[in-house]
Amino acid sequence: MAIITLTTDFGTADGYVGAMKGVIARIARGRPVVVDLAHDIPPGDIAHAAWVVATATSEFPYGSIHIVVVDPGVGGARREIIVRANGRYYVGPDNGVFAYLAAGEAYAIENERFRAERVSRTFHGRDVFAPAAAAIASGDSPSTAGRKVDLVGRLPWGPREHQVGRIVHIDRFGNLISDLPEQEAGRAVLVAGQVLPLLGTYEEVAPGQLLAYIGSAGTVEIAVRDGRADRRLSLARGELVVPAPVDPAGGPYR
Amino acid sequence: MAIITLTTDFGTADGYVGAMKGVIARIARGRPVVVDLAHDIPPGDIAHAAWVVATATSEFPYGSIHIVVVDPGVGGARREIIVRANGRYYVGPDNGVFAYLAAGEAYAIENERFRAERVSRTFHGRDVFAPAAAAIASGDSPSTAGRKVDLVGRLPWGPREHQVGRIVHIDRFGNLISDLPEQEAGRAVLVAGQVLPLLGTYEEVAPGQLLAYIGSAGTVEIAVRDGRADRRLSLARGELVVPAPVDPAGGPYR
Amino acid sequence: MAIITLTTDFGTADGYVGAMKGVIARIARGRPVVVDLAHDIPPGDIAHAAWVVATATSEFPYGSIHIVVVDPGVGGARREIIVRANGRYYVGPDNGVFAYLAAGEAYAIENERFRAERVSRTFHGRDVFAPAAAAIASGDSPSTAGRKVDLVGRLPWGPREHQVGRIVHIDRFGNLISDLPEQEAGRAVLVAGQVLPLLGTYEEVAPGQLLAYIGSAGTVEIAVRDGRADRRLSLARGELVVPAPVDPAGGPYR
Repeated sequence: MAIITLTTDFGTADGYVGAMKGVIARIARGRPVVVDLAHDIPPGDIAHAAWVVATATSEFPYGSIHIVVVDPGVGGARREIIVRANGRYYVGPDNGVFAYLAAGEAYAIENERFRAERVSRTFHGRDVFAPAAAAIASGDSPSTAGRKVDLVGRLPWGPREHQVGRIVHIDRFGNLISDLPEQEAGRAVLVAGQVLPLLGTYEEVAPGQLLAYIGSAGTVEIAVRDGRADRRLSLARGELVVPAPVDPAGGPYR
Repeated sequence: MAIITLTTDFGTADGYVGAMKGVIARIARGRPVVVDLAHDIPPGDIAHAAWVVATATSEFPYGSIHIVVVDPGVGGARREIIVRANGRYYVGPDNGVFAYLAAGEAYAIENERFRAERVSRTFHGRDVFAPAAAAIASGDSPSTAGRKVDLVGRLPWGPREHQVGRIVHIDRFGNLISDLPEQEAGRAVLVAGQVLPLLGTYEEVAPGQLLAYIGSAGTVEIAVRDGRADRRLSLARGELVVPAPVDPAGGPYR
Repeated sequence: MAIITLTTDFGTADGYVGAMKGVIARIARGRPVVVDLAHDIPPGDIAHAAWVVATATSEFPYGSIHIVVVDPGVGGARREIIVRANGRYYVGPDNGVFAYLAAGEAYAIENERFRAERVSRTFHGRDVFAPAAAAIASGDSPSTAGRKVDLVGRLPWGPREHQVGRIVHIDRFGNLISDLPEQEAGRAVLVAGQVLPLLGTYEEVAPGQLLAYIGSAGTVEIAVRDGRADRRLSLARGELVVPAPVDPAGGPYR
């Protein structure tokens, strides 16, 4: 049985997510299991969606199918695509939502078996992406969806350089999540002019104190114990997080 | 395998949706698939629920079962019903939530096989509607639920007249959605004293500009590119949307 | 087929719930059905989670597995446990989220079959609780997870005394829900200095009026018809709700 996940900015007050589920239930063969990943992506926030998709879908089994509909340019020039990466399938607009995936093959969704008979201008989640995912779940090969294409969607920050990270996500708890991996972080990081040692748990600092640690994605995170780091530091995504210079006296930081 | 969908105003912070899912898992035979449609219907907003249910459920396969619990009058005089319409089953209170469905047959939920043994006064989602849906999923015919009845629930605006539409829904993105169908809309519409041409995509206007177009329900929608039409126009639901008078000089509008 | 439910404070904007679902889909044998109970528990609100879990899970069939991740002390001293109570399994931190369950057996989650190979410090939902639930769903006995332990998690209010209730939950509609059961409540209750008779339905008072009644959990609730009791009374959880003294003249209250 195939697994199809849904990540959208549709929220849970309208019928848009429901319509997509209805399409899949109606047309997919073999009764795929449909899984809600996240529907409260901030409206139009492509970078937020990209991080959520990359970190959550890597836990799913190989062969799983992941629809992403954060698509402020729907009906415009951006292309509708299927990406095969990490042994999984990704379906959505080529606008940057797949920026954090490992390189893979991408196909335009052109073939009529991968699209509704009549495609609206404003709801490709229902009329293109759900049918395309249903086609894959039904056994159609993504390479038959259309031409092989190059991914062109980008985020405001480019691919990462060695030992240079950025805040790439701010989560519900106000934690600032960077893309600086543990292996490059050393023992302390520099962010917004402050040096923060990398600690093990929240409980190593007093309530209300800032701390940095290796988060669940394997990258540096910045938090406030029992508080919100986003309010304390007022940092936007894109801010640099780099290993802190080593104290000449030999300490890891000061 | 039967499909049961859930549309409620219970939100996702309390245990009410969970309790309904528990009841279905416990009593339905044949392991129906339970699907969340929308749980953040604004509390008590019957018209909002009615539009969500009509537009989302039409995508589901025939025979699917749709529970709707937006029920501010729970425990009062409104009747609990099952509606058979469009080849699907609808279960909920007769208070207007089914106002946009095509005419069908309705049955009161009276028979004990369709209700919990003990029915609370305030939670018919758990004690009446979930058991009734589970009964249908288990193979019981809705016509054995109770007396055949007439639907009496209404919305503040009545059934639509030819070439007269109204704003009937405001979605998460602030788009104003009318019930004026494409076939009756002509080339431009008049709303709140403004004439708006019907365009094809958001990208035909500059960011921040108002536009009208045929939305995903096949009806006229009004939006602001990269903005919110609800804030721009301050229109409530119920406002008229009608075809714009044709310019005597021959233009479609001015 | 096993049922696994999820109750968290992760919200529906991040990838945390999705990652847990991915882990279960990847490692559980026998394709358990995964059910969302509630993901918008207020961040870190253990008492809120405890009430939701107790009231919703009691509707599920015996043998169902319920993961609860409201875990502000993650990575700290609180223990990760499996509780067997009411014929069901509960998986989460021992911090009070299981305070309203009937007494049962508890086991520490220590065995490697019940945990991910590498456990992060901050995301035990993904690395401990999802794997433990998947192990149970795959047929492993909870008693093989680790040592039998005593539950130590508590809420700010202790176990209830006879005829003494407290406000224990405030729901989406602003209703104040107590743990005073119907059998101990008499015909009226005293709360915040006011005597409120126990009525049958909202419609027995005028719109905007306060009322008390037996709610869907079988306990006393306080509401405002077409309004919010939490705003009217400004009561916090923990406030007493007790049977009202009987009027000496013989009336149930005055």
